[in-house]
Amino acid sequence: MISYEKIIRETRPADQKARAEAAQYIDGLIKPIGSLGKLEELAVQIAGITGKVHGNDLKKRTIVVMCADNGVFEEGIASAPQEVTILMARAMAAGKSGMTVLAHEAGSDCTLVDIGINSDEPIPGLLMKKIAKGTANFTKGPAMTREMCVRAVETGIGIVCDLKDEGYAMIGTGELGMGNTTSSACVLMGLTGISADLAVGKGAGLTEEGYENKKRVARLALSVNRPDPDDPIDVLTKVGGLDIAGLVGVYLGAAYCRIPVVIDGFISAVAALAAARLCPDAARFMIPSHASTEPGFALAMKELKKEPMLFMDMRLGEGSGCPLAFHLIDSVITMIEEMATFEEASIDGTSLVDIRENQ
Amino acid sequence: MISYEKIIRETRPADQKARAEAAQYIDGLIKPIGSLGKLEELAVQIAGITGKVHGNDLKKRTIVVMCADNGVFEEGIASAPQEVTILMARAMAAGKSGMTVLAHEAGSDCTLVDIGINSDEPIPGLLMKKIAKGTANFTKGPAMTREMCVRAVETGIGIVCDLKDEGYAMIGTGELGMGNTTSSACVLMGLTGISADLAVGKGAGLTEEGYENKKRVARLALSVNRPDPDDPIDVLTKVGGLDIAGLVGVYLGAAYCRIPVVIDGFISAVAALAAARLCPDAARFMIPSHASTEPGFALAMKELKKEPMLFMDMRLGEGSGCPLAFHLIDSVITMIEEMATFEEASIDGTSLVDIRENQ
Repeated sequence: MISYEKIIRETRPADQKARAEAAQYIDGLIKPIGSLGKLEELAVQIAGITGKVHGNDLKKRTIVVMCADNGVFEEGIASAPQEVTILMARAMAAGKSGMTVLAHEAGSDCTLVDIGINSDEPIPGLLMKKIAKGTANFTKGPAMTREMCVRAVETGIGIVCDLKDEGYAMIGTGELGMGNTTSSACVLMGLTGISADLAVGKGAGLTEEGYENKKRVARLALSVNRPDPDDPIDVLTKVGGLDIAGLVGVYLGAAYCRIPVVIDGFISAVAALAAARLCPDAARFMIPSHASTEPGFALAMKELKKEPMLFMDMRLGEGSGCPLAFHLIDSVITMIEEMATFEEASIDGTSLVDIRENQ
Repeated sequence: MISYEKIIRETRPADQKARAEAAQYIDGLIKPIGSLGKLEELAVQIAGITGKVHGNDLKKRTIVVMCADNGVFEEGIASAPQEVTILMARAMAAGKSGMTVLAHEAGSDCTLVDIGINSDEPIPGLLMKKIAKGTANFTKGPAMTREMCVRAVETGIGIVCDLKDEGYAMIGTGELGMGNTTSSACVLMGLTGISADLAVGKGAGLTEEGYENKKRVARLALSVNRPDPDDPIDVLTKVGGLDIAGLVGVYLGAAYCRIPVVIDGFISAVAALAAARLCPDAARFMIPSHASTEPGFALAMKELKKEPMLFMDMRLGEGSGCPLAFHLIDSVITMIEEMATFEEASIDGTSLVDIRENQ
């Protein structure tokens, strides 16, 4: 196992020279300065990640889905059997869930990881990296030990390093686990100090009563555990989950391995924030996808200084925003590789910029 | 030439039965009700367009780009030579402009149409459908005659009917023409009665002085021409352009031919609104793509009861939002064709819905 502290120490910042070269190259393409908006920003970001403006082949890609159960489930924050985690994991392994069919369409593999499902049987199609059969109920004490949390983070790092060795050039993040919007809200509260009213969402189907209960559970979790906001591992240990901790490792691993990593929805964004708190340089390797409607999502994005690109009203989870973002990233590569420069098109750049900006 | 009035009379509404069947089928997929958001809405819309839930093959696609010059150009609303329309049309024909490279990446052809470029020479790679060498300066009288406007609309319709015959199953809309955000703002003012302050945008590079001039020009155009808001053809004739009128025909043709048609940015959205005013059923065939930052765009969307899916800060025009939306539409088709139903996955649908909504 690779020490997460060593990985953080050895992560290099984004390549400023490549970023500057990309920005300059893009300004020479036949369009008004900045008119391709976030596609241009992404091109600069990708150059900073890979260290080169041209020749970035990101076609080999996968979505790493951390699957785990959460002890807080027993507080009645969800109203159906926990076994649905296993049923959905099986549907994912069969390539039949929402995220997996979208991934297939976007030319992406899926790397499904059992990092803490509450089952004794291994689930075919999932990498067996189980650290525990779910976490403890964090309204009664810490969700896990610090050692377990570190192992989950380092598991995520190890998976990304393996993927890099296998030639993967871009990854997305996903999760599966009943109760994980509650743990995510608690981690966000622990990291930022915001109240349950701001961090906890109604979800799609929560009644007013269910929503009040979810906020009560989150408040209780924070007051029982008092996580240290300056120690993200402490926050993850006390009020997080194995899925979130695993995703934190995925982000850290992506930065260390210099691979672009796509953020999905709320849970994924909270993990991204925890990773960025551990390793500020890691944020430069993260690419947002769609906007979750969970209220805490916007705060996590703001803290990360990111803006989602897609507003699809999606709340499926699983990593389902990542395949949609992969297409946008493909468009970025095409822009860089195929668009003509002013010079090639024999257009006076200054004139075109002026005129197009003033249309 | 096909009479646009006949086309409007013969356009049938969306297929309500297919829409209802699609909605029911989607609710049976293994996900919480509604959790794939706009992807689900699009699936319902596409079923209503084609009349079937399954087997919709939209891979053969093209972006119809209406290229024209605008007489209002001489009012100093742009600061560089009008010839850039021709230079950019050549870059498009070479497949080297922003939109054309994105289209190529999204598996889309481009159908470039000279409907009114100010040139004597045909431009290789463009369909020659020139109605005039640009419009007249509409601050001094109507942009064109009503007969020219109708011909432009019917040209757009005819192109879509031809594309349908060639097997195209989905189209996007694009435009090229110096000065066409000004004409679009004027059409929007003419159709809705809003003021120049709300309809006219600063564009990207307009100085405060340029912005004031553009608003002055728009106000003057409306007061000189007094277009009839209840007669969209009158509005297009007096303060529109050949590119916008051609796009109106593309939307009408798409509805008549029952082909999904993607809206791009401001100019394309204004044309969509004019088409929907002529033929309210046509709106059901239009799919939004990205959000333009032009202030009038949001109003046009609101009038159309549409919401963009992509927030990319793009302001290139050309139809550049369409290829990005094509990928989202491909994802919709995949969702319908590949996701498991609750029955197939042997999951108790009610439980999953409950639990996922309450995560």
